[in-house]
Amino acid sequence: MAGSTFGTVFKVTTWGESHGKGVGVVVDGCPAGLALSEELIQPFLDRRKPGQSRFTTKRSESDSVQILSGVFDGKTTGTPISMIVYNQDQHSKDYSNIAELYRPGHADYGFDIKYGFRDYRGGGRSSGRETIARVAAGAVASLLLRELGVTVTAYTRSIGPVETETFDEAEIQNNKLYMPDAQAAEKAAAYLEQCMSEKDSSGGVVECIVSGMPAGVGEPVFDKLDARLGQAIFSIGAVKGVEIGDGFAAAAARGSENNDAFALAENGTVTKQTNHAGGILGGISDGSAIVIRTAFKPTPSIASLQKTVNRQGEEVDLEIHGRHDPVIVPRAVVVVEAMTAIVLADALLTGMSSRLENVKKIWGN
Amino acid sequence: MAGSTFGTVFKVTTWGESHGKGVGVVVDGCPAGLALSEELIQPFLDRRKPGQSRFTTKRSESDSVQILSGVFDGKTTGTPISMIVYNQDQHSKDYSNIAELYRPGHADYGFDIKYGFRDYRGGGRSSGRETIARVAAGAVASLLLRELGVTVTAYTRSIGPVETETFDEAEIQNNKLYMPDAQAAEKAAAYLEQCMSEKDSSGGVVECIVSGMPAGVGEPVFDKLDARLGQAIFSIGAVKGVEIGDGFAAAAARGSENNDAFALAENGTVTKQTNHAGGILGGISDGSAIVIRTAFKPTPSIASLQKTVNRQGEEVDLEIHGRHDPVIVPRAVVVVEAMTAIVLADALLTGMSSRLENVKKIWGN
Amino acid sequence: MAGSTFGTVFKVTTWGESHGKGVGVVVDGCPAGLALSEELIQPFLDRRKPGQSRFTTKRSESDSVQILSGVFDGKTTGTPISMIVYNQDQHSKDYSNIAELYRPGHADYGFDIKYGFRDYRGGGRSSGRETIARVAAGAVASLLLRELGVTVTAYTRSIGPVETETFDEAEIQNNKLYMPDAQAAEKAAAYLEQCMSEKDSSGGVVECIVSGMPAGVGEPVFDKLDARLGQAIFSIGAVKGVEIGDGFAAAAARGSENNDAFALAENGTVTKQTNHAGGILGGISDGSAIVIRTAFKPTPSIASLQKTVNRQGEEVDLEIHGRHDPVIVPRAVVVVEAMTAIVLADALLTGMSSRLENVKKIWGN
Amino acid sequence: MAGSTFGTVFKVTTWGESHGKGVGVVVDGCPAGLALSEELIQPFLDRRKPGQSRFTTKRSESDSVQILSGVFDGKTTGTPISMIVYNQDQHSKDYSNIAELYRPGHADYGFDIKYGFRDYRGGGRSSGRETIARVAAGAVASLLLRELGVTVTAYTRSIGPVETETFDEAEIQNNKLYMPDAQAAEKAAAYLEQCMSEKDSSGGVVECIVSGMPAGVGEPVFDKLDARLGQAIFSIGAVKGVEIGDGFAAAAARGSENNDAFALAENGTVTKQTNHAGGILGGISDGSAIVIRTAFKPTPSIASLQKTVNRQGEEVDLEIHGRHDPVIVPRAVVVVEAMTAIVLADALLTGMSSRLENVKKIWGN
Repeated sequence: MAGSTFGTVFKVTTWGESHGKGVGVVVDGCPAGLALSEELIQPFLDRRKPGQSRFTTKRSESDSVQILSGVFDGKTTGTPISMIVYNQDQHSKDYSNIAELYRPGHADYGFDIKYGFRDYRGGGRSSGRETIARVAAGAVASLLLRELGVTVTAYTRSIGPVETETFDEAEIQNNKLYMPDAQAAEKAAAYLEQCMSEKDSSGGVVECIVSGMPAGVGEPVFDKLDARLGQAIFSIGAVKGVEIGDGFAAAAARGSENNDAFALAENGTVTKQTNHAGGILGGISDGSAIVIRTAFKPTPSIASLQKTVNRQGEEVDLEIHGRHDPVIVPRAVVVVEAMTAIVLADALLTGMSSRLENVKKIWGN
Repeated sequence: MAGSTFGTVFKVTTWGESHGKGVGVVVDGCPAGLALSEELIQPFLDRRKPGQSRFTTKRSESDSVQILSGVFDGKTTGTPISMIVYNQDQHSKDYSNIAELYRPGHADYGFDIKYGFRDYRGGGRSSGRETIARVAAGAVASLLLRELGVTVTAYTRSIGPVETETFDEAEIQNNKLYMPDAQAAEKAAAYLEQCMSEKDSSGGVVECIVSGMPAGVGEPVFDKLDARLGQAIFSIGAVKGVEIGDGFAAAAARGSENNDAFALAENGTVTKQTNHAGGILGGISDGSAIVIRTAFKPTPSIASLQKTVNRQGEEVDLEIHGRHDPVIVPRAVVVVEAMTAIVLADALLTGMSSRLENVKKIWGN
Repeated sequence: MAGSTFGTVFKVTTWGESHGKGVGVVVDGCPAGLALSEELIQPFLDRRKPGQSRFTTKRSESDSVQILSGVFDGKTTGTPISMIVYNQDQHSKDYSNIAELYRPGHADYGFDIKYGFRDYRGGGRSSGRETIARVAAGAVASLLLRELGVTVTAYTRSIGPVETETFDEAEIQNNKLYMPDAQAAEKAAAYLEQCMSEKDSSGGVVECIVSGMPAGVGEPVFDKLDARLGQAIFSIGAVKGVEIGDGFAAAAARGSENNDAFALAENGTVTKQTNHAGGILGGISDGSAIVIRTAFKPTPSIASLQKTVNRQGEEVDLEIHGRHDPVIVPRAVVVVEAMTAIVLADALLTGMSSRLENVKKIWGN
Repeated sequence: MAGSTFGTVFKVTTWGESHGKGVGVVVDGCPAGLALSEELIQPFLDRRKPGQSRFTTKRSESDSVQILSGVFDGKTTGTPISMIVYNQDQHSKDYSNIAELYRPGHADYGFDIKYGFRDYRGGGRSSGRETIARVAAGAVASLLLRELGVTVTAYTRSIGPVETETFDEAEIQNNKLYMPDAQAAEKAAAYLEQCMSEKDSSGGVVECIVSGMPAGVGEPVFDKLDARLGQAIFSIGAVKGVEIGDGFAAAAARGSENNDAFALAENGTVTKQTNHAGGILGGISDGSAIVIRTAFKPTPSIASLQKTVNRQGEEVDLEIHGRHDPVIVPRAVVVVEAMTAIVLADALLTGMSSRLENVKKIWGN
């Protein structure tokens, strides 16, 4: 069964394994006329690159994107945009010792049962490198959204027990952990040092804010905007929870607290006095900022000794060597942004035909 | 854009508004040969029926399902199963006063902006009655899963601040709140009485457990089992958060705590010593129980006075009359079960072709 | 596997068997604001009704459509439009003698092999009654197209050896065979009398012309406009061939004959001096009339003795009694129109986002 | 809108323009465990390569396929198979004179209207080179079908007025025109010489035969096997007509002639005494050979002077230089085979779940 394609009109298909020739993506359905180049996409990829700090792996991958199709004279042509990032620094030998056993917290066992065998090198298809393709596609989506005045901004909300307590957007790109709170970033760094010294890893939470999203986007039932976001975000490896707006806190709240009163803005437009809903009501954007929080589990590859079983059905001990981030979150920030942008781009394009009067604007005489 | 269809091979299409002629569903792609009848489906619908207790609305809807196609001689034929539940007790007049304004916490504003106008009677397409169609489809999926030894069980995990503390499966059907803990159910009932007396409502959490799920189901990337569950569950109205396994708690955990060690069961099969993952690793089922938690916001229709705006762009006061549940959760339990069952049925059917040797079992000579 | 849904944004799902409770369709994705009522749809259904002439079966089915959802205050709401036609005149006993054997030219054998058993009453899901659902959906599509100035007109091009030789559009609705040539219609009627007297049936060809279609609609590769039409038309029972423009004659032609020279119309717009292409070049509409021809095989149910086998694996003789049209074509005319309209509506809606400037027209500030 | 993806479970996504960096395809959903390598795929591509004879263009493209993902240890892993063929011999300058005008018979005008501008080099996305991606994907599908005993064989049925009159399968690969009749191939070659000397081109017909196809494959309504074939074949550039079995001849036939009597084969299995149906009844395979005929229009690029208009809205004369095949058909033979194989592979995989007993074979305890 095919599960590597996502989206209805803005459609993304990814491919590639961590230790194959490369990873890539085909973005089909991007409108013609959008300025696009490798230079515009590369900065998105650079944000998820390893080797940026002590807390990301030391692999020195350049991860340079190449556009293979769909762009002519600096603009999208409306035909599929194929992008590729070649794999370079692969060290296949690092993984040979895990070919025959199932790493706890990884997809190894599931792949073996599902397919009968697996590409065990570096996680194969479920490697973190698969997210390169998502980020490249998300870059295209983000550039499209910018043309419509929509901005997607994600950052690290917490690492282990360390929560951000203040919000300074400029600070996000200022620290290696992508936290909007410099003090929290320092505390989190100290916490990660401790995890590493104990051969352990940490989980964390990414928060994503969408501003400028017009009201009226999303479909009422299965393709609710939050439902599509739910699929998109849960499809990122290591995600264990997703919240929109107040999320689980809403479950403990009263209706009188949780309802957002509608009011008129100074310019006469409808606005909400609060945003417990996180910008989505009944699956449709309400014009407020969209707020998504995502829980990432701790990196499953840890250096301490673990118990597991092998393909021969024997219980064995496992020590994972090699280079692994002590926390997934900082590099996942741009991935969450990418998946969010892809969902919004698709929802905006598919939502163009909601009203007959809009259809007539395009096709009417 | 069409957003009322869900699934790839086991495909569900719903239709209907709360105050139209009825609500219904077409289930396409159910294998031929499954025993099916209205008697087998009705018990699922009865669990979401209003009027069962003080905490569900007093509307006396019979909500009897009729099968219109796809069943012959008591078995599914493999062709689409169309089911309908006619609306009966509609009281359209109750809603006439809200036709021109936007209820806080509801989809009214989004619908008006998206479509230019809306069926304002009882929430129209985003009414809770839309879930009847999901439950009917979920019943078919559940019956199919039973044939494969898979059981889906949901229950109320918390209502407002009241959490279940013990788990007695038999108790779930014993109290009106579908809680597996009789004492918690009593406390929750008292809490709801208080909410009602204060013209207020409460949120809550539904937990869903899947047992008997074979390992190896789900697709590695966008159609991860948890991603499909994420879309399915977030597509239920009023859902604000979804967790798989430890969920947000995993974000605060260490890798050494969160990783589930693989081990051998007594019968020699691979098992996990813990289940922080909630039965899904890398998007693929791992043979452990699948665990999903869902946060529902408080019922937005509350009797106390609220501030809002109307279609004419004026700020107005709103008092909602009529019959509304003080909490969504008890009636949502079976809806969560239904959406989960639909996702699993689809994943099992689409996953049949993962291995060439399985394809040969069906089509080989 | 689900195969009863068609379309991307304008999405149609049909259900129902000839001898179940009814047949129906859910149209999801129709823009909000289109005037719609049962009165507007019924005339389309009346054109495929049996009992209209000596050459259609004498079953007196009223085939009245009911709209169950998606319309409010006389207009579509943007939510799914569910329509149903109840079965009335079913005569199940007529079919009991064929339950155990495979009628030549019918789907009986395929159904039994595929599903393990079948609803043998009147063809079940592959009955001609299934087309009622297509026609109801096609009516919605046609009404939408009218708003955009697009008209779809189908008629009988030939019956057996009798070809239409002149084209008088007004004549189409004037004779029971829907031929645009009164003389040909008379000859065809005589030919059908002869077929019937010989317990035989005839094939025929339907031609469909689309006028007013804007240029630039359709997608370059797999969703070429002709490819979608190809699927849609071949999905009608009994279709054995489809041509666009010159069709098979183009295969015998020279490039110098077959190429349509572009020229300027008096109003300065681009036009073609001929239309061998049938209005589609490279899968995209070129602004000329779209021309589709469809070959229907003869009605397989004939009264003469036929050889076949039964489910027990014995060779047996078969005599089909009951009421069957001697030719499928006249009642298929409106079905071809319907499927064509559905394809065009979907292509127009999905094609709204081809240009960034069009996206900005809808969502830009 | 995205139109570059085809298939449900065996899903194919193509990308690339004739004068971009290359063309490629992602095949997602191929079962794991199929032997696959570049050596197994290349022979399929070699059959559509230009430069093989006087009647194909003299461009010396090597068209070597590279597999970038989805294969490990010589077998498919079940994850997406990405394949690429780099463009080499591009001669962009040949096309500069046509950037500003619309070639008759080409998609130029449609692209400009649809997207606002186009990649005019060599047809861009609607170039014949796009079929490389289809052939590579079709090779994977063909290799999968072989494992199930299904063989797809296409050949040239006619070129212009020259029809094959005898059928010798061995002869197909023996002549440059892929005709199964050596004498017809000679006549056709002479006819093409004449066309070329007159600066003209010819159309032709490809016939495709599928043997070994099990009965019971295909879906009853919109995804009838012939409907999916109809979309797939019409999605090939230059196709103007498709027939299944007797095709348009069936429209002129009587039911008594056209019905295929069922009978018992010597081994007791059900068979048909004739095959007017072309192996598909009611959209489901009936176990006989599947027979598809496809009409290709003449190559639109001809050397003689043509009338057209330019982007500035002026009528102009056009002389096309450069290298163009005088007939599309010989190189299209393998493309028809590819698209047929893709449809059948997808139908076989999606059809695995038609019966509950088959589902239990894979997932039951």
